[in-house]
Amino acid sequence: MASTYRNFLTSVPWLILCLEAVCMVLFFFLGFDISPLIPYPAFQDVNHMMVFGFGFFLTFLKRYGFSSTGFNLLIIAVGVQCSVLVEALLHFLIGGSSWFDDSLKRITQASVSMTSVVISTGVILGRANPLQLILMTVVEIIFFHISRCINTLYLEVPYSNSLMHVHLFGAYFGLAVSSQFPEPSPRAEKSSSTPKSDLFSMLGTLFLWVFWPSFNSVLFSNYRQTAIYNTYFALAVSAVTAFVLSVLTTKDGKFRMTDIHSAALAGGVAVGYAMGSIQHPWIAMILGLLASVIAILGSSCLQRCLNPALKIHDATGVHFTFGLPAVLGGLAHLLLVGIEGWINISRYINSSYLGSLVMTHLGAICQTISVALVTGFITGLILNLRPFKTTPVSKYFDDQFYWEFPHLAVGF
Amino acid sequence: MASTYRNFLTSVPWLILCLEAVCMVLFFFLGFDISPLIPYPAFQDVNHMMVFGFGFFLTFLKRYGFSSTGFNLLIIAVGVQCSVLVEALLHFLIGGSSWFDDSLKRITQASVSMTSVVISTGVILGRANPLQLILMTVVEIIFFHISRCINTLYLEVPYSNSLMHVHLFGAYFGLAVSSQFPEPSPRAEKSSSTPKSDLFSMLGTLFLWVFWPSFNSVLFSNYRQTAIYNTYFALAVSAVTAFVLSVLTTKDGKFRMTDIHSAALAGGVAVGYAMGSIQHPWIAMILGLLASVIAILGSSCLQRCLNPALKIHDATGVHFTFGLPAVLGGLAHLLLVGIEGWINISRYINSSYLGSLVMTHLGAICQTISVALVTGFITGLILNLRPFKTTPVSKYFDDQFYWEFPHLAVGF
Amino acid sequence: MASTYRNFLTSVPWLILCLEAVCMVLFFFLGFDISPLIPYPAFQDVNHMMVFGFGFFLTFLKRYGFSSTGFNLLIIAVGVQCSVLVEALLHFLIGGSSWFDDSLKRITQASVSMTSVVISTGVILGRANPLQLILMTVVEIIFFHISRCINTLYLEVPYSNSLMHVHLFGAYFGLAVSSQFPEPSPRAEKSSSTPKSDLFSMLGTLFLWVFWPSFNSVLFSNYRQTAIYNTYFALAVSAVTAFVLSVLTTKDGKFRMTDIHSAALAGGVAVGYAMGSIQHPWIAMILGLLASVIAILGSSCLQRCLNPALKIHDATGVHFTFGLPAVLGGLAHLLLVGIEGWINISRYINSSYLGSLVMTHLGAICQTISVALVTGFITGLILNLRPFKTTPVSKYFDDQFYWEFPHLAVGF
Repeated sequence: MASTYRNFLTSVPWLILCLEAVCMVLFFFLGFDISPLIPYPAFQDVNHMMVFGFGFFLTFLKRYGFSSTGFNLLIIAVGVQCSVLVEALLHFLIGGSSWFDDSLKRITQASVSMTSVVISTGVILGRANPLQLILMTVVEIIFFHISRCINTLYLEVPYSNSLMHVHLFGAYFGLAVSSQFPEPSPRAEKSSSTPKSDLFSMLGTLFLWVFWPSFNSVLFSNYRQTAIYNTYFALAVSAVTAFVLSVLTTKDGKFRMTDIHSAALAGGVAVGYAMGSIQHPWIAMILGLLASVIAILGSSCLQRCLNPALKIHDATGVHFTFGLPAVLGGLAHLLLVGIEGWINISRYINSSYLGSLVMTHLGAICQTISVALVTGFITGLILNLRPFKTTPVSKYFDDQFYWEFPHLAVGF
Repeated sequence: MASTYRNFLTSVPWLILCLEAVCMVLFFFLGFDISPLIPYPAFQDVNHMMVFGFGFFLTFLKRYGFSSTGFNLLIIAVGVQCSVLVEALLHFLIGGSSWFDDSLKRITQASVSMTSVVISTGVILGRANPLQLILMTVVEIIFFHISRCINTLYLEVPYSNSLMHVHLFGAYFGLAVSSQFPEPSPRAEKSSSTPKSDLFSMLGTLFLWVFWPSFNSVLFSNYRQTAIYNTYFALAVSAVTAFVLSVLTTKDGKFRMTDIHSAALAGGVAVGYAMGSIQHPWIAMILGLLASVIAILGSSCLQRCLNPALKIHDATGVHFTFGLPAVLGGLAHLLLVGIEGWINISRYINSSYLGSLVMTHLGAICQTISVALVTGFITGLILNLRPFKTTPVSKYFDDQFYWEFPHLAVGF
Repeated sequence: MASTYRNFLTSVPWLILCLEAVCMVLFFFLGFDISPLIPYPAFQDVNHMMVFGFGFFLTFLKRYGFSSTGFNLLIIAVGVQCSVLVEALLHFLIGGSSWFDDSLKRITQASVSMTSVVISTGVILGRANPLQLILMTVVEIIFFHISRCINTLYLEVPYSNSLMHVHLFGAYFGLAVSSQFPEPSPRAEKSSSTPKSDLFSMLGTLFLWVFWPSFNSVLFSNYRQTAIYNTYFALAVSAVTAFVLSVLTTKDGKFRMTDIHSAALAGGVAVGYAMGSIQHPWIAMILGLLASVIAILGSSCLQRCLNPALKIHDATGVHFTFGLPAVLGGLAHLLLVGIEGWINISRYINSSYLGSLVMTHLGAICQTISVALVTGFITGLILNLRPFKTTPVSKYFDDQFYWEFPHLAVGF
């Protein structure tokens, strides 16, 4: 263990430094183009969500508060730089022209893309060391942008919409990576939460809940208002339904905090795809309701059956908070596009065009999930090679393995 | 108790579901009108205040952090939907035309209206179960909008100004409801706070303090700047005075955290009515000073004499944080309108018009308080009928009665 | 002690009240000029940073959470009013005309100026009583504005740029004041942190990190976009480097939380001077890297050698978080101005003008540091005169000396 740890000690900083050096050199080719297409407060909201909201959303583990918030900051600081560069590179290779006309838009898109990484991190929370997290960040950002490019170029998904696949990609990539990690011992006392850590997690959840309309609307200048209203109402119904179902699914009819955390956000995820084509708030509300139902029934039923069978350990319930609601949202979008097309079928479009429209949308969803699963699986294999795998299972979910604890009392 | 509890178990989710179903059906009649009169960041600030600020403002109870933040989210998610619908219904019945021209304005007005419910919740914090809270939310929102309509139609209060009665209505409605609830045993160990829970409450207070200028200014497009400056300075003086008076009123000359929490906000409440007619910041500052004096002297003197006599238990000190400062603000507004009118008396207006102006303002305040007290009293009676009254007094202020606690250590 | 304390009890509230009375009277001469040059959301971000971000940034001490957040609110509420008045007075004496054209700009400038006081507070955190803090606030704000005026009038620093000296002034003023305070006993158990208090401090740090681009850009209408991008990338690199160096400098290769707190912000401080003249993000990134290196090497090496020799106790590591990075930023700005001038030397400017430009910039930095040190030293002497020095060394870092603790369990 000592030698493994020394390995870790020597490798992490140098890896990060090399990465930073590469970033800085490559940033040499990026100038500033100052024509703000994105209002600064909207960018700020997204930035706040990523750094603060997700950081504290993940603090529910008893002894993992430092790592949850700290590593989240590290990943985002590294990942946003990588994402800007990867996107610029792809843009250079493919040669689109109108993509990259605003520096603030660039950072905003990078922040939104980073959601996929942060979601994946949630699945392996407490089991991956910083070295693995950083490697995963770089690899995942690259594959996410490639998957996006495929969607945009071959499946004709509009460019901004393609970013709404973050939840889908992040959740399934994370689950595939997680399947390669050793499982923690089932009665690990450290993997539980305390009332205080749950309250910190509630703090992060409320932040995410409040800023989700900004997240969904930030990249859509043409229907920003519609996106805001739909997301707001979907979130509201989703939060209410979370309380309802939490009472119905627990044994003695009490509320379960983790249900509230995950289900309250599911509505925002589900409405992400379709928000532009929803013309009435009640459709968004029904989507929010269904997303919440999926999130809670998923976490209470499926998690018990499915995860042990597939040997997946999903620390934050990412599959039910982000994965399934995103699938639901994609299918709902498909349905709405189909219905809208069918209504207008005689007037503007013919039936074969409608069919191809629906098929490309469906194809984009399937493509994203497949790429996420395959690349996630490979990434998981690589991350668990000898040189990267330094955290013994007994030190999972433990801040003290990564952080100095000069404190006298360590009762977190 | 078991059967009562089963009653609770079966009733809460179905009540909420029915409510949601009604909401969704009614929302069918509401479309989107997209002409943003309210800047999105301002709406976001108000939303943030309601969900996050008030949620954590109420976490000062030792073992009630989950319920404070969780039920606050539930109430707001339910209440905003109801409020939008009630306002649309009243608008439809009365037939005003220019009220409802922006969807974002609609949600913002609903959020601001919800302040009254959240304030009322503060009075009965820890004593009401979720069923009672949701019933109270629906009933209070309806009565608040009716009271507003009376003010607007018969007392000629400008429409936007009428929303500034939220604090007044919320505080007195809550106190009237509270008078019907059984009192907790006076030496209930659970109704106290810990340094940590007080710090969480400070977190919420600082949020409210920072965003109060947004709250006061969000609905006033014509004098937004003035509202912001006046509120900011009133809050600053109010916070400073809170420290001064806290030292002077405690036995050994120390600061009292609860004083800081309540008095720092009193200035923002007091300036809410008059902010449009204040032309110099020093007037706002004096208002902030007086509001803080009332809040602290109220909590240290009156609470000891008045509340036991009237048998009112006011968990958060709502009467002195929101009730009395709002009365002060209303009277100050009256005075300023009177003085301004008296100066211009010869030029624009005659003396009888001035008299009627002052009387209608006074009438609006009295009308709001009376409606709040009467409807609150009735609501309190209904909420304490057999089917709704499920929480035994010994389980007051206790998260574990409502929430699953899988945690090993429950020392909050 | 009893009599000293009575002295304290009687003096604090009256001092604050007198100050408030003076403020209110003087505010009589200030009207409102409503022409918003500063967007309200940007002001709100700065306000949020000051009240909430710095408040919680300073909560890392085990038993000093109430005082950290509470006194921070008190200082800002008092200081902003003083700052507005001092600036108005100086403006009146000197007679510039275009300075004061917007009320919101006035409050924003006052908030930004208050950063210097909040930074100084960080140095003597836990050792100064509220009386000393308020005196220091008033004195420091006056001297800071005088130093700014010297810079603007005699050294031709642009007016907005002169506000970026806040970090420099605050850090060295605080250190000079601190040198006059008695040192706490080295193994004071109370001056340490707990995991929970470190997490609260992380909460504040993340707030500061997220809002720093707003802070740096709020006063620069002509190159706001550039300031935002440069600050964002400097902060990102700075955060990443903090993790790298934290591992390299600790004994067993773990991360140290205090390093992350201070180094993550150093990048934003360093880029403050030069952000307008940086044309490529990679320059900002290198500045962020260097700032982080200075902050961490400073705290791990210099603090051990330098501070005991100079008998300075720096509770928050302000010297390395704000002081040295600000010096670095100033020198980098100098270099960039020099290089840019040298490139254009034949075309627009001659060599002697370039020399004088560089010398005035250098002069401004030296002037700020000297004024800060001298006035800080004198202020420290005055604050430790008999009537103000009421806190015994054994009661340092202890909330219970200042706050009522009705809580049964006081284990913070």
